[in-house]
Amino acid sequence: MEKVPVILLHNALVITMDSDSRVYKSGGLVVEGDKIKAIASSAEILEQFSSLSDEVIDLNGRIVLPGFINTHVHTSQQLGRGIADDVDLMTWLHDRIWPYESNMTEEDSYISTLLCGIELIHSGVTCFAEAGGQHVTGMARAVESLGIRACLAQSTMDCGQGLPANWANHTTEYCLQSQKELYNKHQDTAEGRIRIWFGLRQIMNASDNLLLGTRDIAKELGTGIHMHVAEIPYENQVVTNTRGVDHGTVTYLEKIGLLHSNLLAAHVVWTNDNEIDFLSKAGVKVSYCPAAAMRMLGFASIREMLDAGICVSLGTDGAPSNNRMSIIDEMYLASLINKGREAHVKGMTDPTAVPAETVLKMVTVNGARAVLWDNEIGSLEVGKKADVVVINHSSWSMVPMHDCISSLVYSMRTENIDSVMCNGKWVMRGQKILTVNEEELLSLAKQASSKLLKRAGIVIPTRMNFL
Amino acid sequence: MEKVPVILLHNALVITMDSDSRVYKSGGLVVEGDKIKAIASSAEILEQFSSLSDEVIDLNGRIVLPGFINTHVHTSQQLGRGIADDVDLMTWLHDRIWPYESNMTEEDSYISTLLCGIELIHSGVTCFAEAGGQHVTGMARAVESLGIRACLAQSTMDCGQGLPANWANHTTEYCLQSQKELYNKHQDTAEGRIRIWFGLRQIMNASDNLLLGTRDIAKELGTGIHMHVAEIPYENQVVTNTRGVDHGTVTYLEKIGLLHSNLLAAHVVWTNDNEIDFLSKAGVKVSYCPAAAMRMLGFASIREMLDAGICVSLGTDGAPSNNRMSIIDEMYLASLINKGREAHVKGMTDPTAVPAETVLKMVTVNGARAVLWDNEIGSLEVGKKADVVVINHSSWSMVPMHDCISSLVYSMRTENIDSVMCNGKWVMRGQKILTVNEEELLSLAKQASSKLLKRAGIVIPTRMNFL
Repeated sequence: MEKVPVILLHNALVITMDSDSRVYKSGGLVVEGDKIKAIASSAEILEQFSSLSDEVIDLNGRIVLPGFINTHVHTSQQLGRGIADDVDLMTWLHDRIWPYESNMTEEDSYISTLLCGIELIHSGVTCFAEAGGQHVTGMARAVESLGIRACLAQSTMDCGQGLPANWANHTTEYCLQSQKELYNKHQDTAEGRIRIWFGLRQIMNASDNLLLGTRDIAKELGTGIHMHVAEIPYENQVVTNTRGVDHGTVTYLEKIGLLHSNLLAAHVVWTNDNEIDFLSKAGVKVSYCPAAAMRMLGFASIREMLDAGICVSLGTDGAPSNNRMSIIDEMYLASLINKGREAHVKGMTDPTAVPAETVLKMVTVNGARAVLWDNEIGSLEVGKKADVVVINHSSWSMVPMHDCISSLVYSMRTENIDSVMCNGKWVMRGQKILTVNEEELLSLAKQASSKLLKRAGIVIPTRMNFL
Repeated sequence: MEKVPVILLHNALVITMDSDSRVYKSGGLVVEGDKIKAIASSAEILEQFSSLSDEVIDLNGRIVLPGFINTHVHTSQQLGRGIADDVDLMTWLHDRIWPYESNMTEEDSYISTLLCGIELIHSGVTCFAEAGGQHVTGMARAVESLGIRACLAQSTMDCGQGLPANWANHTTEYCLQSQKELYNKHQDTAEGRIRIWFGLRQIMNASDNLLLGTRDIAKELGTGIHMHVAEIPYENQVVTNTRGVDHGTVTYLEKIGLLHSNLLAAHVVWTNDNEIDFLSKAGVKVSYCPAAAMRMLGFASIREMLDAGICVSLGTDGAPSNNRMSIIDEMYLASLINKGREAHVKGMTDPTAVPAETVLKMVTVNGARAVLWDNEIGSLEVGKKADVVVINHSSWSMVPMHDCISSLVYSMRTENIDSVMCNGKWVMRGQKILTVNEEELLSLAKQASSKLLKRAGIVIPTRMNFL
């Protein structure tokens, strides 16, 4: 049997995100295979493990954090970045996103997920939850290559208005069966980095049979459900009108027993106090996507959810909803927007709302809980998987640094992400992606996206006087 | 006499921001000395000017825009980045910012402005309006070195509660006289890149004599006034209680005749419809700072101001109010936040509100009007100053690009800013600052900021369990 490699990292500010909020001012950690073998002060680590290590890396005072977790991202939409900017919601969905998605091939999905993946890695992400796309097998191939971790899900719809022709004939049975097949095919593949979840696009495209069937099969398989929940007031109105409840989607999901700790509810913007209570009691996890919310949905009650003890994590959403697929920017936004939102709740902003340490939890420990993986990732602790991000804070964007925790949330940018390790292997070092050829991929992605838009008949009006 | 150098730039997507919104898909421009001599298609430019040029630069399809203008930035606060994160407003001001600012030396101001300047250049800024600091001479030295353009202003206060001891004795006469001296000393220096404005910190620290004196002297000298206006509800309340008007600061400034086209009003968050009308009729320029507003002030009525024809420009504010001093991030935020804000105005977000082309105007043509410099900067036109930003859009953060105007606002990040020219001279090329030694400066800034915090007695609590 081959010897498992041992890597020693030292001379770093190590922010563990463990339950005691331990930070080693001058810390080190030892990675053995895919796991963290030791974590302590640099002095102790060097003394105990120098001689046993295959590689000793001096991080020169850089910051080390657990890899960030992006809990809501449409990786298949990366080729559609910029196809639906500044348009109303119906144009967004019917004229741009659905034609785009329904014309994708598995190869498009593969390229799109690779392209999205390199952006995620550049922003320090080592694990993501796919919000639901068409070709899970394409995504899985990409995740295998990228070297990061993912909970993949198929986008599932069995009813509703305005669906493209090739989706409209999907029966409930087909939706459930195809997901079971994907589970059997891909669950726990890529050295255990891939997990398969069940997807529900949104309530207006789901029959009760699909909702209940998803609930039961996900429970049976012990996996999670990823669903868009309470995105716009219209959604709640339709639910109230057609499903006999007094408020909206969350109330209805409570009624039919879909609220459980394995539900990852994305967005969750339009909820009342009762519904926040339902989510809290059921242990539902929330993926909050600040940029997409600001752009298209509204300001979610994040402070209230946190006060109610709900596990709130962060997502970027897909490229046509946000454009910047950076969990770092989402951290910055999550804090700012929720400080500002208090002006509408209480008459004045509250600069103390949603402080930096809370936001850091959202992308680490809370992210891990949201994707049901917190026994292995989300914090730097002995025995956990070695998912690590290394941050270079000595550039103009982060100097001076008087409060390192807040600097990570308010000052850090993607430029500061130096290196990323997932499952004990480097996927980026010194800002260079090691697992995929970036240049080749960018060229491939440009071609694939042009062809896809042409095939889908999507034409984007120009905004200025082009000569 | 020395020959003026001629530089030819070609093979670029040139977005002129002129009044006809002209974009050259494959364009070029000729820079002669500090001015734009010609702008046209690459073919025409090459044919007419190749033989006359000292340097011909192929931009390989990059995007060329007018240099961005940041209309509200406290350059002296850069050394205080991160000293006041997640604290309430009174702590922010009395325990952190005022002790910081009142303990600065001229050398600190110089270093701080240099540090801020390199961050501004990295985000494509060629001109900024200083919001008002203590040592204008220090700032001027820095601007001279940096090679960019600035409207500098002294922070001016002659009354009000809680001021540090060494500020409390500033008389109205001193405030006005010292600014006149600064005007005489620095106006139109650094090859015409420096202009001196009059500053008013905010109404709660300004006597009527200071307000009226500033109004009259600025008019006499033909320069602008930079003032923080209507930042928080408390400010309006104090004005209503003490100055006999029925709403707030804008109403009072209207009453005493301070609203003119040379007033650059920063923030302007808490206004009513009448006040928007006053600002519009008087031709007052607004500097909107989305991040600082979200974090500390509230959501300004930007759509309403634009509808009323007010010239809205963008500012970053200072590093303790925002941390990220990137006008690019402000563009992204300005659009997102105002789409989202409609949810509170109309019950649902409006993804069409404040579209990308409007935001691009804010940082170019509107910025130039706001700093009273639109006869020379803000658009790429023959005869204007050669202030140019070159954008590399072929990286993972901007691929694919289906809608180039929106991609600049929604996808672009500081990473994409390749080169920056001001007044006909490169200040950054290939992401390398040419005018200042970045490494040396960063080290100098770290030392100066530590010493300053110590001198000011500012202690920042830790947030986690540091070992």
